[in-house]
Amino acid sequence: MNDMSTKKLNTTVLPGFMELLPPLQMAFNRMENVIRETYEQYGFLPLDTPVIERAEVLLAKAGGETERQIYRFTKGDTDLALRFDLTVPLARYVSKHEREITFPFRRYHIGKVYRGESPQKGRFREFYQCDIDIIGRDTLSLVNDAEIPSVIYNVFSRLDFGPFVIRISNRKILKGLLEGLAISLEKSVEVMRIIDKIDKVGKNSVSVMMSDLGLTKETIEKIFQFLQISGATDVIIQSLRSLDIKNEQFLLGVDELSQVITNVGKLGVPDSYYAIDLSIARGLDYYTGTVYETILSAYPGIGSVCSGGRYDNLAEKYTDQKLPGVGISIGLTRLFYQLNEAGLIKQCSSTPTKVLIVPFVSDLTLPLSVATMLRGAGIATEIYLEEARMKNKIAYANKLGIPFAVIIGEDEVRNGECSVKNMKIGKQTQVKAENLLAFIESEGN
Amino acid sequence: MNDMSTKKLNTTVLPGFMELLPPLQMAFNRMENVIRETYEQYGFLPLDTPVIERAEVLLAKAGGETERQIYRFTKGDTDLALRFDLTVPLARYVSKHEREITFPFRRYHIGKVYRGESPQKGRFREFYQCDIDIIGRDTLSLVNDAEIPSVIYNVFSRLDFGPFVIRISNRKILKGLLEGLAISLEKSVEVMRIIDKIDKVGKNSVSVMMSDLGLTKETIEKIFQFLQISGATDVIIQSLRSLDIKNEQFLLGVDELSQVITNVGKLGVPDSYYAIDLSIARGLDYYTGTVYETILSAYPGIGSVCSGGRYDNLAEKYTDQKLPGVGISIGLTRLFYQLNEAGLIKQCSSTPTKVLIVPFVSDLTLPLSVATMLRGAGIATEIYLEEARMKNKIAYANKLGIPFAVIIGEDEVRNGECSVKNMKIGKQTQVKAENLLAFIESEGN
Repeated sequence: MNDMSTKKLNTTVLPGFMELLPPLQMAFNRMENVIRETYEQYGFLPLDTPVIERAEVLLAKAGGETERQIYRFTKGDTDLALRFDLTVPLARYVSKHEREITFPFRRYHIGKVYRGESPQKGRFREFYQCDIDIIGRDTLSLVNDAEIPSVIYNVFSRLDFGPFVIRISNRKILKGLLEGLAISLEKSVEVMRIIDKIDKVGKNSVSVMMSDLGLTKETIEKIFQFLQISGATDVIIQSLRSLDIKNEQFLLGVDELSQVITNVGKLGVPDSYYAIDLSIARGLDYYTGTVYETILSAYPGIGSVCSGGRYDNLAEKYTDQKLPGVGISIGLTRLFYQLNEAGLIKQCSSTPTKVLIVPFVSDLTLPLSVATMLRGAGIATEIYLEEARMKNKIAYANKLGIPFAVIIGEDEVRNGECSVKNMKIGKQTQVKAENLLAFIESEGN
Repeated sequence: MNDMSTKKLNTTVLPGFMELLPPLQMAFNRMENVIRETYEQYGFLPLDTPVIERAEVLLAKAGGETERQIYRFTKGDTDLALRFDLTVPLARYVSKHEREITFPFRRYHIGKVYRGESPQKGRFREFYQCDIDIIGRDTLSLVNDAEIPSVIYNVFSRLDFGPFVIRISNRKILKGLLEGLAISLEKSVEVMRIIDKIDKVGKNSVSVMMSDLGLTKETIEKIFQFLQISGATDVIIQSLRSLDIKNEQFLLGVDELSQVITNVGKLGVPDSYYAIDLSIARGLDYYTGTVYETILSAYPGIGSVCSGGRYDNLAEKYTDQKLPGVGISIGLTRLFYQLNEAGLIKQCSSTPTKVLIVPFVSDLTLPLSVATMLRGAGIATEIYLEEARMKNKIAYANKLGIPFAVIIGEDEVRNGECSVKNMKIGKQTQVKAENLLAFIESEGN
């Protein structure tokens, strides 16, 4: 700072916006890559849509909460908004390109979405969603509902944050049960909302809330009897069937759930990684069949890290074509934040660089050609070009966690050699320039 | 369409926003990946900053054009805007994290930026920029200026759109020349703006414009004499030295350019891929030394596909710390659009999927386990799950360009076989389930 300094601008990011230092950004990108690669492994096509859309398009189906949170503004005389999820843009996209895309349409989309929530720890106003959806024209086979947990299983196995359970249910079951118990559709919606809270508030509160709604003791008892059904997946299916509920929707839901569960096993998801959980209600107007949640077994407090389900009609506001689908979303920004808070993010390396060339010569011919040779062989390489003492140049490699420093001084140039320092173990070796690549490769990372 | 259909919403994207169908999206992503991988090969660290920032931060250095084009709005009582480039956020980021980052700070950033330009063919309001910058604290070695063209060379070689030339100059030379010709600083700015247009409007118009500015015939003659200097890089450097201009800046510029050019060669960029071009003036207030443009030799009409340069001070509005840097930007959205218009975008495959499993059995055990096995081996696999005739299932593979269809019917299940159809050559082969992986791998893509 000098006396000439003028007032400087506030450089903090806005509350609710995530900005990472490079080591954490590297870790974030690794997670994003695992998700992307797994999605592609299942043949999902990449998609990218505008962040800005017409407000009327984004708000076509939105309710009060969304309308309050959305970033909306005008430019010229156009009423614009920033997308608040990737599903509405998908609905618009599929409607627009209906004749050009091939159904079933399998797409993934990884992108930022915006919600002006009240700033709060772990809540973000700008965050990444990583979505997959499979969209059918008129119909979509139920086997797709079984493929989704197989994708979740592969993503979270590869992310490697310990054991997790994919909880699966079918909304027709609960809906049919409530219908069978002669609860009005309106009240059903409330009951499902209450049930969704059972993990958070406990059984007693849920009981009180249902009673407040006017449900009889007997009815509440029946609902708890239903919610208490547990055990292995086949035991649950058996118990559901033996509840002897004569509601068509209920029975259809049980059949669908049974089929999905069977096929999840056939798709190689180990038994311990999925379970039926009848308490999942998930949203209310959107999902119509299979629903999913995913819980990290050691960190249930994080809540569901990957959720979704089956819906009957993706895009009724945009097209008359019936478009049933099934999909999931990972809220990557929030997930990353929570994992980092829990100390689960490993900062393996904070740079892509494998080799730092450290020249101590005025003629840079050898250092520059060595760097070019290594890069040509696919080894990420930097050259330390600033004037500094040896100590400081090596400190740069250390700070960034670069595995190898290749020191080139006058002696080395004279002998056509490099002095290779393995930064991890501190060992220094003289290596002929022509053997450098082989040496680095053999030492590994 | 039925009579019940209600009015549907407009599903077109806003003018100036790019939205691609999956085959083109795949091609776009391939380009983005090449750029990302090459940037990482040179040890640039990934960065991601918010799209929304405080308006005062983004507009700190902006002029009239930017102020008109920026997307600006309030949320609550905060004056917000969408970033219009990645350089201003970088300046803010480096200032904020000055004590936490390691200098020289090499970062890349690939992200969307927003400019409300008047809609026009090939102009975008939302577009990707792919930037690298190297930021020093107080000083930054000139050799970094030579490394940048080496990055450009590797990016565009790998993108493979034919020969290209990286045009290099140094703004000190032109600035020093005009100073030496006793042209006022104010007029210099105008003259440089005019010179920047020479490729578009031709020599005559430039001459008229300079004359209109009040430059004497003699001075204009001198400027053209300077601009006409051409030939091999060493010839140009010689010619510049022999112009005998006694201006300190001019001489410093020639020295810097000479050093940069020498080191570009040492970094393995072939002679035909770079050249000195003294007519590059590039912006006016920002760049202070080396400047770059990149021209695809067969498509000069596209203009520069990758530009940038050296600047003395990245972030004077945010910090007192002097932060010199050098960087480039690729405007990927516009580049992709132009290449596609020129018919240069090859749509190699329109899906990541390598194998489509086509089941004709009610028990899906074998098809599902075959898919799981292939995915486990890293082969992107889909299963066709809808009810359809053989013809339509195969048509799906054809439309998406999936290389292999693996047909599993009752016969196949009985014999533990699959019928593998190589979609490219149309050949069908019976393969034992346990040999499927080896067969697919040996047939390649």
